[in-house]
Amino acid sequence: MMYLSCVIISWKVTARERVNNVKLLIKNCYLLPDDGDAAAARGDLAIEGDRILKVGDEGELPRDWKAERVMEGEDYLCLPGLINCHTHAAMTLLRSYADDLPLMYWLEKKIWPIEARLTADDVYWGTMLALVEMIESGTTTFSDMYFFMDRAAEAVEESGMRACLARGLVGTGSEAETGLEESKEFLEKWQGAAKGRISIWLGPHAPYTCPPDYLDKVLALAQDYRAGIHIHVAETKDEVEQINKLYGKTPVEYLKERGVFQFTTLAAHCVHLTAEDISVLAETGTGVAHNPESNMKLASGIAPVPQLLAAEVTVGIGTDGAASNNNLDMLEEMRTAALLHKVNQMDPLTLPAPQVLSMATGDGARALGLEDVGLLKPGYKADIILVDLNQAHLYPRHNLTSHMVYAAQASDVDTVIIDGRIVNGKAQSLDHR
Amino acid sequence: MMYLSCVIISWKVTARERVNNVKLLIKNCYLLPDDGDAAAARGDLAIEGDRILKVGDEGELPRDWKAERVMEGEDYLCLPGLINCHTHAAMTLLRSYADDLPLMYWLEKKIWPIEARLTADDVYWGTMLALVEMIESGTTTFSDMYFFMDRAAEAVEESGMRACLARGLVGTGSEAETGLEESKEFLEKWQGAAKGRISIWLGPHAPYTCPPDYLDKVLALAQDYRAGIHIHVAETKDEVEQINKLYGKTPVEYLKERGVFQFTTLAAHCVHLTAEDISVLAETGTGVAHNPESNMKLASGIAPVPQLLAAEVTVGIGTDGAASNNNLDMLEEMRTAALLHKVNQMDPLTLPAPQVLSMATGDGARALGLEDVGLLKPGYKADIILVDLNQAHLYPRHNLTSHMVYAAQASDVDTVIIDGRIVNGKAQSLDHR
Repeated sequence: MMYLSCVIISWKVTARERVNNVKLLIKNCYLLPDDGDAAAARGDLAIEGDRILKVGDEGELPRDWKAERVMEGEDYLCLPGLINCHTHAAMTLLRSYADDLPLMYWLEKKIWPIEARLTADDVYWGTMLALVEMIESGTTTFSDMYFFMDRAAEAVEESGMRACLARGLVGTGSEAETGLEESKEFLEKWQGAAKGRISIWLGPHAPYTCPPDYLDKVLALAQDYRAGIHIHVAETKDEVEQINKLYGKTPVEYLKERGVFQFTTLAAHCVHLTAEDISVLAETGTGVAHNPESNMKLASGIAPVPQLLAAEVTVGIGTDGAASNNNLDMLEEMRTAALLHKVNQMDPLTLPAPQVLSMATGDGARALGLEDVGLLKPGYKADIILVDLNQAHLYPRHNLTSHMVYAAQASDVDTVIIDGRIVNGKAQSLDHR
Repeated sequence: MMYLSCVIISWKVTARERVNNVKLLIKNCYLLPDDGDAAAARGDLAIEGDRILKVGDEGELPRDWKAERVMEGEDYLCLPGLINCHTHAAMTLLRSYADDLPLMYWLEKKIWPIEARLTADDVYWGTMLALVEMIESGTTTFSDMYFFMDRAAEAVEESGMRACLARGLVGTGSEAETGLEESKEFLEKWQGAAKGRISIWLGPHAPYTCPPDYLDKVLALAQDYRAGIHIHVAETKDEVEQINKLYGKTPVEYLKERGVFQFTTLAAHCVHLTAEDISVLAETGTGVAHNPESNMKLASGIAPVPQLLAAEVTVGIGTDGAASNNNLDMLEEMRTAALLHKVNQMDPLTLPAPQVLSMATGDGARALGLEDVGLLKPGYKADIILVDLNQAHLYPRHNLTSHMVYAAQASDVDTVIIDGRIVNGKAQSLDHR
């Protein structure tokens, strides 16, 4: 059933014309100011190959540079593509499969049993479905943790997306050693694939599913392959209690003791942290993936994001999987983050729009260790979205940063460029504008 | 400036072909089960004039009934139109005009000064802009409080929308008496206008802006014209403190003492309530308009919605004005309500999807005293939306109720029918399907 319903979708990604990267000039589009406060300005944006050459006044075009393709930007806001720092893409197959249930019942009776039956083909199609949804809604990079990751990588390569992919690793049961073996093969086969768009990470699932000796094996692999660590941390109160019972530590302390944070680490969720945990994350340069909608829906709690930001931890935003969200819409996730922390702090100045937009773009890229992604700057990767402002809900145009965080919807995303290539469905009409 | 940017929009509403109500048959669309738990079924829906004749197995068609217009419903979910219980429509003009500011600074330095300069024409265009946004995103009824309401009513009449309109009344200063006079004229001219689509309410702004003697005058008008009362109640902690200082009461107690709840009352916000306040609202059959995004953005607090529902208070959902939201998207507002209360209660069973969908449809209609609106039932007003399920983010179709609350976006709304008439822009293509 799931397989069939996804086949219907596949054409969207695979059948359409791929527009190769060329010398592309987007003329006179809206560009947001760096500080987000001032009004948007207009400017041109030039792309050559997979890189941004010029943005407004920044950068220079070679004297004889001539665009092979020109787009009129008049009604468009040009933004860096959105970065979904934590998801399980193939879980789109479980979208609205089980909702409004107690967490352990949801996991044990619903999610895990059906996941045990997913095939490699299911993961390919589920990831492809996620890619369609993410690309069409303006996401240009995502960080994933799941299984049958070979097939997920295949889908990523075909779609044109940029991704950090990790094979989820659980350190108990028969899967433990297989997972390590598969991770090694995955690293060897896919690290840097798709012209560098694919990075492979290691995915030890969580402190409570990875005992110390297993974590040590994962870290040995990380050392050998210079790979980053993507791990769920302190998602629920139960986890914190469990780790305390087992080791007399917080999840962050446990991971620190094992030496996890000596590697590039992306800690997903981080809902229940002590002040000391926050200091550890800050000192070790660990990136955090904040997933507000999933944490709300599963009633896990509210991550101390303002406190993390105050400690200068790099915080990106993620949707988590579609089973606990139930979509992969980063515009929506930005809005939820901005609103949730205001009311949680009882302070309307918390997480202002420019800060949230940074979290979903440049900060997210930094959390994923992508140094030339997430900003509209000359020399950065040409991962760019054009938002069509000609919508009733985006009038008038007092402040376009606020519009993106508080008013925009996924369908406003008109054109999606990744690595200099136009990758989305709507883009076919571009030349006719 | 604002005027100009809105003119651009006006054509969407005013220039397109209006499809008059006819005998309309929507064939084989998805219909949600009443309890929301079971899988969606398929069925036909028949409309004649402004009423629903038949929905699936319910209702009967006269023997010789023949549709004048037939729509294929194959990929469509048919729902009652969404009901926005509390907004200030013309504030679309102030969308993203002032964000991320302290509440009193926002009001006193930003919102009130610019509102003082709005003209009657501005309110017409601002309301029209809101109508485009609301209709295109599936809202078929809204409850409004603002000024220059004659012009707002004009826009509502032209658009085909259903509305409960109130002239906002502040009981201090020069506006106090003018407001009462205008409300009276407004009632006389517009009550039941637009073929019954327009209801006029009285809009005493809030306990802290309406002293006792002024409230008495408002209630005298309510008595004379049998009009309902739309009022902001207990929106902020400051209000509660202020009313306590003035009268030694909670806002709800103050209104009860004045006799407000003897009339049909819609209490917007109700963020800060005592258990006793909740009992009063329950006993008096007062409807509550819950505005989660506005309350979050302004850091007003989180309304005790689960407690209100437990006490059997009728709770609808509203967006509030676009200055504090910053859109009028009821699908988004449903999702935020469902997620917010789960994490606030730390219970994932709080506000399950079917309940939230009821709040945004049938319960909202009841809160507005509209007895034949908000349900897909024979005899009810034909206020109906068709959601196009053929979207990546709505695959697969495990549970369409969950889809609507947790995954759908405004742009998925394809066709909007109010009072039996197709009123939205996309609908022109319908006959060609």
